[in-house]
Amino acid sequence: MNKLVIVGTVAFDAIETPFGKTDKILGGAATYIGLSASNFNVDAVAVSVVGGDLPQEYLTLLEDRGISISGIEIIKEGKTFFWSGKYHNDMNSRDTLVTELNVLEHFNPVVPENYKDAEIVMLGNLHPLVQQGVLDQMTRKPKLAILDTMNFWMDIALNDLLNVIKNVDVITINDEEARQLTGEYSLVVAAQKIHEIGPKYVVIKKGEHGALLFHNEQVFYAPALPLKEVFDPTGAGDTFAGGFAGYLSKTGDLSFENMKNAVIYGSTLASFCVEKFGTERMISLKNSEIHKRLQQFKALTQFEITLTETLN
Amino acid sequence: MNKLVIVGTVAFDAIETPFGKTDKILGGAATYIGLSASNFNVDAVAVSVVGGDLPQEYLTLLEDRGISISGIEIIKEGKTFFWSGKYHNDMNSRDTLVTELNVLEHFNPVVPENYKDAEIVMLGNLHPLVQQGVLDQMTRKPKLAILDTMNFWMDIALNDLLNVIKNVDVITINDEEARQLTGEYSLVVAAQKIHEIGPKYVVIKKGEHGALLFHNEQVFYAPALPLKEVFDPTGAGDTFAGGFAGYLSKTGDLSFENMKNAVIYGSTLASFCVEKFGTERMISLKNSEIHKRLQQFKALTQFEITLTETLN
Repeated sequence: MNKLVIVGTVAFDAIETPFGKTDKILGGAATYIGLSASNFNVDAVAVSVVGGDLPQEYLTLLEDRGISISGIEIIKEGKTFFWSGKYHNDMNSRDTLVTELNVLEHFNPVVPENYKDAEIVMLGNLHPLVQQGVLDQMTRKPKLAILDTMNFWMDIALNDLLNVIKNVDVITINDEEARQLTGEYSLVVAAQKIHEIGPKYVVIKKGEHGALLFHNEQVFYAPALPLKEVFDPTGAGDTFAGGFAGYLSKTGDLSFENMKNAVIYGSTLASFCVEKFGTERMISLKNSEIHKRLQQFKALTQFEITLTETLN
Repeated sequence: MNKLVIVGTVAFDAIETPFGKTDKILGGAATYIGLSASNFNVDAVAVSVVGGDLPQEYLTLLEDRGISISGIEIIKEGKTFFWSGKYHNDMNSRDTLVTELNVLEHFNPVVPENYKDAEIVMLGNLHPLVQQGVLDQMTRKPKLAILDTMNFWMDIALNDLLNVIKNVDVITINDEEARQLTGEYSLVVAAQKIHEIGPKYVVIKKGEHGALLFHNEQVFYAPALPLKEVFDPTGAGDTFAGGFAGYLSKTGDLSFENMKNAVIYGSTLASFCVEKFGTERMISLKNSEIHKRLQQFKALTQFEITLTETLN
């Protein structure tokens, strides 16, 4: 087992989808990553900042699942980061209605002493300088630093982003963001260009179309499970990243072959996340359900071709 | 080995993509299906109609690959079907510039006597009444009738299309067309609705995102091979269908498990088709190249997860 540091937001989200809308509910990258990784019983800490308005039970939720909250600063007089968004009918795009940074505006992440030697660091979507600030606190170079980001930082802090990307081993990014970052339409060429920036592993998330894992000339593809309905996509990408990081932390095997499994676990967990609003489905999730869905992934993708005699 | 009847256009295409443009070159659904199926050394006939302007060498091309052209009517004084299109920069959409039906306008397909008992019929994209006309000529019900179609027929001949869809076992259709046909956004729900119309097997083609095979509650996913560049998507769907039908004809095994392999072969062959303009790549294709690419598909999708001990 490798120790895992999870950095990201713990937030209030208000979400509207074609299926309904929520009041302020628990959200944030660190929340989804932590809930997802907790399925692997990892030794992990969440590093974040919240205001005094965040119900204590939200933090207890993580703690009860074995994710240490010793890295979550509580600013009593502050307000928790708030995001509100509305998804379009196809669920593949959304409008941001409200973004209130609040305590996030001056977030100085502090990695607890006993996690400064963690082998794996999962940098959730945040300002790239904050992500770099976490890496700088590690007393030894992590075996695996994983970075998630989004187009917003490419627009307003590209140089800072490129600097931190240089220092990580894995980047998770969606297809449009990979194209924006590299100026290349082909995801194969985009992944090559990102390799050149630094990361040895590039995960390109394609939403309902699955995810691609690139490592030099090698490529692996994990489909998204075809679902009857996607209820709320919020947190799916973070849940994917949490499953990926959690599985690698648990197994401690950072080979490309094992990273394939990590991608499959990430996709599996993300397929649950979208079934209900917010974190609801992840909180109720049972191991037996994960096992069953992994079997569905196998049935979905595994085949047996014998090459003999078939071709002329 | 099962006998295979291939119905579709043999055409002139003029294609423009961001990589260049062609004069009138060989195209058409039956051409691509036939070239693709011929890799399995099938006992097949192409049923089509062409004008006197089609170079004899285009028909010889199919014949040399073991596809009988005894079902291709040549109307000496007529002109061959001509299609011209221009692809947009993302290659996922295109504009039709010219459609000249010519001899296709009054096409009465005639299945040669010695193929009227064929076990497998591949109905390429054509007017649904023409597709039904071929089924009506079969002296015994085929073991497997496969139908490909497009949104055009949904717009102008929906009832005829629904009637022929009722009579086939497999439909291949792209994602947008599946949504149009059923009014359902979710491809899982769309496939269920198409099952209810008739076909026991539903293949939904998602272009660069691969293809889904549905059979009642079962689902299988074949990714498209991530490519550095797609040179010309023309014929990729027909090449997929030809590989699918050809593999099933060769093996004679129409089980769902074997149909998974057929989908993989279809995707593999389609991945070659798009590498050059028109039929160029399919004509030069070697078995050794297909074998090598199948290995790439395996590496792309196959994984080994041991479920023990990983979850908490």
